Amino acid sequence: MDGKPGNLLKTITFPEDLRKLPEKDLDQVTRELRDYIIDVVSVNGGHFGASLGVVELTVALHYVFNTPHDQLVWDVGHQAYGHKILTGRREVFHTNRIYKGISGFPKRSESPYDTFGVGHSSTSISAALGMAVASRLKGEKDRQHIAVIGDGAMTAGMAFEALNHAGVENSNVLVILNDNCMSIDPNVGALKEYLTDITTSHAYNKVKDEVWKMLGKISKFGPNAQEVVSKVENAIKTTLLKQSNLFESLRFRYFGPVDGHDVHRLVKVMRDLRDIPGPKILHCLTVKGKGYELAEKDQTKWHAPGLFDKITGEIFKPTNDKPQPPKYQDVFGHTIVELAEKNPKIVGVTPAMPSGCSLNIMMKAMPERAFDVGIAEQHAVTFSAGMATQGLVPFCNIYSSFMQRAYDQVVHDAALQKLKVIFCLDRGGLAGADGPTHHGAFDLAYFRCIPNMIVSAPMNEEELRNLMYTAQLDETPGPFSIRYPRGNGVMVDWRKPFQKVPVGKGRKVRDGEEVAILTIGHPGNFAVKACEELDREGFHPAHYDMRYVKPLDEELLHEIFSRFKKIVTVEDGCLMGGFGSAVAEFMITHNYQASITRLGIPDEFIEHGEQKELWNECGFDSEAIKKAVRQTVGEGIYA
Amino acid sequence: MDGKPGNLLKTITFPEDLRKLPEKDLDQVTRELRDYIIDVVSVNGGHFGASLGVVELTVALHYVFNTPHDQLVWDVGHQAYGHKILTGRREVFHTNRIYKGISGFPKRSESPYDTFGVGHSSTSISAALGMAVASRLKGEKDRQHIAVIGDGAMTAGMAFEALNHAGVENSNVLVILNDNCMSIDPNVGALKEYLTDITTSHAYNKVKDEVWKMLGKISKFGPNAQEVVSKVENAIKTTLLKQSNLFESLRFRYFGPVDGHDVHRLVKVMRDLRDIPGPKILHCLTVKGKGYELAEKDQTKWHAPGLFDKITGEIFKPTNDKPQPPKYQDVFGHTIVELAEKNPKIVGVTPAMPSGCSLNIMMKAMPERAFDVGIAEQHAVTFSAGMATQGLVPFCNIYSSFMQRAYDQVVHDAALQKLKVIFCLDRGGLAGADGPTHHGAFDLAYFRCIPNMIVSAPMNEEELRNLMYTAQLDETPGPFSIRYPRGNGVMVDWRKPFQKVPVGKGRKVRDGEEVAILTIGHPGNFAVKACEELDREGFHPAHYDMRYVKPLDEELLHEIFSRFKKIVTVEDGCLMGGFGSAVAEFMITHNYQASITRLGIPDEFIEHGEQKELWNECGFDSEAIKKAVRQTVGEGIYA
Repeated sequence: MDGKPGNLLKTITFPEDLRKLPEKDLDQVTRELRDYIIDVVSVNGGHFGASLGVVELTVALHYVFNTPHDQLVWDVGHQAYGHKILTGRREVFHTNRIYKGISGFPKRSESPYDTFGVGHSSTSISAALGMAVASRLKGEKDRQHIAVIGDGAMTAGMAFEALNHAGVENSNVLVILNDNCMSIDPNVGALKEYLTDITTSHAYNKVKDEVWKMLGKISKFGPNAQEVVSKVENAIKTTLLKQSNLFESLRFRYFGPVDGHDVHRLVKVMRDLRDIPGPKILHCLTVKGKGYELAEKDQTKWHAPGLFDKITGEIFKPTNDKPQPPKYQDVFGHTIVELAEKNPKIVGVTPAMPSGCSLNIMMKAMPERAFDVGIAEQHAVTFSAGMATQGLVPFCNIYSSFMQRAYDQVVHDAALQKLKVIFCLDRGGLAGADGPTHHGAFDLAYFRCIPNMIVSAPMNEEELRNLMYTAQLDETPGPFSIRYPRGNGVMVDWRKPFQKVPVGKGRKVRDGEEVAILTIGHPGNFAVKACEELDREGFHPAHYDMRYVKPLDEELLHEIFSRFKKIVTVEDGCLMGGFGSAVAEFMITHNYQASITRLGIPDEFIEHGEQKELWNECGFDSEAIKKAVRQTVGEGIYA
Repeated sequence: MDGKPGNLLKTITFPEDLRKLPEKDLDQVTRELRDYIIDVVSVNGGHFGASLGVVELTVALHYVFNTPHDQLVWDVGHQAYGHKILTGRREVFHTNRIYKGISGFPKRSESPYDTFGVGHSSTSISAALGMAVASRLKGEKDRQHIAVIGDGAMTAGMAFEALNHAGVENSNVLVILNDNCMSIDPNVGALKEYLTDITTSHAYNKVKDEVWKMLGKISKFGPNAQEVVSKVENAIKTTLLKQSNLFESLRFRYFGPVDGHDVHRLVKVMRDLRDIPGPKILHCLTVKGKGYELAEKDQTKWHAPGLFDKITGEIFKPTNDKPQPPKYQDVFGHTIVELAEKNPKIVGVTPAMPSGCSLNIMMKAMPERAFDVGIAEQHAVTFSAGMATQGLVPFCNIYSSFMQRAYDQVVHDAALQKLKVIFCLDRGGLAGADGPTHHGAFDLAYFRCIPNMIVSAPMNEEELRNLMYTAQLDETPGPFSIRYPRGNGVMVDWRKPFQKVPVGKGRKVRDGEEVAILTIGHPGNFAVKACEELDREGFHPAHYDMRYVKPLDEELLHEIFSRFKKIVTVEDGCLMGGFGSAVAEFMITHNYQASITRLGIPDEFIEHGEQKELWNECGFDSEAIKKAVRQTVGEGIYA
């Protein structure tokens, strides 16, 4: 194999090539496509289980439908590797998720087959419906619009909103429910149990049992009893399976469940569905990681395993001689348990990210106090606010970019009511290979403008622990947000005793002259490095770790602006309205005059790549800080 | 009457007084409560139909449940007038929605009976579930948690997210579905049709028909046929009504539908439900405006009618001798039709606010191109983005504070993909009597930080028209946001021919000296007035209407900062990160030195009141501008 496509796959550059093949060849195509994904991902990394689970679906969809004229929207999109390989990107697939390479998600600018950019969950039905309504208005009656959505993504409110609307729009929308009972972690919630029920005809069996029970009590039965019962049963089955269906309740025609790994069955069903107008849903049962045994068995581990030996299944972990700093998320996960052991009011909430944010540590240690609420950020926040009204102290952990989903709930249900929910924003700042949909670029700006919010970011593991400790103290008001980046911190020895970080208090990391560097969060470490190197060049900037974007440490800022006329601010967040902007507001409010150089994420969407590559590209790594200090001092010299 | 409570009502200060009455008195209580609401609202204004529709529910809830120990969450909350009157606020109810008076919505700081602050739709189940889980963790087994939610609010995604979670949490949650088929406008979507179906047992009838059809074909029937069929039917009915139910699918026990105006029936059912543990839903059928005939007949008109003669039903309209400027929303409503008549690509989208935002004008004129998608802001945005991929030009109209619900969709589905959705943000800025939940305080800040966004605000009707015209031009990129306030503009003669407003171009309203006033949007009119008056005092500030917060008119700003050392910025939006902050960013980026005085909404939640009262309180009306100009000039003199 060695990353070379099989004999049939190599003849397929675009779906039109696939559609020329006789149907009997599709088994071989799916085998070769699966092998190719395993080959490339094992060597290059990326999402794994999701794409393996939809190989047959992918082949069947492009075989039956006239893509890209027929429009295919992949929900979330990390299952779309097969789709990318079949739509002109086989030869560049090895650049997947690499800096300047192709995106790990469908992306409109990359291919006309990527009809809608995705990354966040549960947008596909809305987008496909928009396309379908557009086709209707344009009189394109034969055009098909297909959303492929997982059962996990179906729990998000916006999927329901879209179903509710689609059910009354007479448009060509086919929703393919890819039911594998998994998001990254196993799915939770009533919908999941419902899907299991309809899969196993639980509802039908229950009715049948009741009927039998009733009939059993009728003693006067004649010889036709058996036949009557059997006929009645058939009638019930036919209609009940239609009527009792959640999706049929919402005016979708429901088909399934079908085996999502039987490509021939899928082709047949899709051909049938193509000719049925109006909204319809096809329920497919798939197995995440299908065709790679280890991935089928431990689906969370193999969601995105990193590099591995495809023969032995060994996942390569970077080996280090000496201990390494932990991931911030694990510091969160261990620390919440440590705090919750002492403070019985603490509870934990995650919307479907227990392993991603490490709340799984608490879910294991104290399951009754840690809640995975499904892909449901809005509910997660208001549910937390509800608990806070009763004096509980919820730590609600949501990735920065996903927190955008619950913005109104933070404003309306937490901040306005001064309810102490502690928001832990993981993946704050540039998130790396997941790219622009997942960068947590905006949270400092969008939280800072909300009254009553405390907005903080730790520079390292110890500060994360201390901010968490401070937030849960009775005396600390709320809501309180703590944001930290994806990846590792900087301290090997991080389990220090807790210390309170007074709200709105920064700290001086080092004194200096001429220039003051003000940092927020993890980039403080870039400044430390920059300062050490600048020292050797003869520049001696001061460095302050502000810790709180809101409230700002005004006392410290008065001190800084009184002493320094040159300020450099550094943040892993958007420059528009962010931390540097807050410092500028302070300056003009208090009539100081200083030059402020703001380093951070510029006003554009940043593509994917390793975090270091992106910090460099955006210009706030230690090199950029050094350059900014040299320039600002230089300006002083020549001014 | 005359705003005096009836004989029974006046004995009820708190629910404990109500609970002392014999059940037979409840009819009189509901009559008196209804009369009291009609009396006070007809004279003082406020929401009307919603509270009349839940009088019996309100009385029954407080009669049966031990409030506030049992916790009652009203969704949205404009139906909670009866609740307020029965919970200690009867005597202050006439101050409802008035500056410094009680809030039009439940509010935690106002009463312990207001368990959760509301205003935006569909938060109640999440909040009640949070309370219920807290009670479970605290071992308070007897405590009840009740969410009262309308069928309209049930269409929002977050209600579904909460149901999905509540279905698997074994907590005491009772959801009262107040089904009146109405939000402010009639409800839409599949859920509404489904609720009508279960109300009329449509599903059951369909199954029954099928069974009869099958049995009709059985010719060998013996004499027991009738009995068999009848027994079978019963069995089907019992189980089917359980199994086929949308809410039962989500693991709620479903009860109903019941007549929501039969207070005795409600008391009985609620007593029964109180003793059933776990999540349950009670489906109540009510009529919005119940008991006031005109309000029952035209429910949209009587949602919040303003002042009226309660006897004749005449709604008082302010009369004016001369023509008045129109509401901004009506300018939007007429202008989109005017544009859409020429540009076939234009479509209109509203999440359940057709009369509130005046898209109803387009829905009437070209129904196939205007979409009410239900209370579903998230879907509204992504649905619009989906249409935009096909070259349509959607105007998606969402109130500023409700747009917070769709923040992620604006970032992820519109801006990141550079899809031209035109966001019209009605109720931008301080919204008036609806108070802090409805003030559109944050949109300039939270939109400004999103790359690719164009963020604009018109100073008057003509500019609104011209911005709408500009946005839909082929040459204009997107997404494009236009925000304007609640209420009336300033131009009587507003139907001017369209003129393009180049993107990122402000305008000089008047030249001047020493001080430059930079305004965005409607407050530009306050500056005009201030300048006229300042002229007479001998101050002659210049005034610029910037029109775009993003992109800023940098050419104009260079001109301004080159000429002026004193700048006053004015906005009807939050000062943190808003327009003034953008101007400050420009200044420090380009190393200008000037004093900037920023006027706008301070960093706190602003209570309710008339807009003029609030503009004054926040300090950006014409008086405040005059003061700021005098001060900044004064500083110059004494500096």
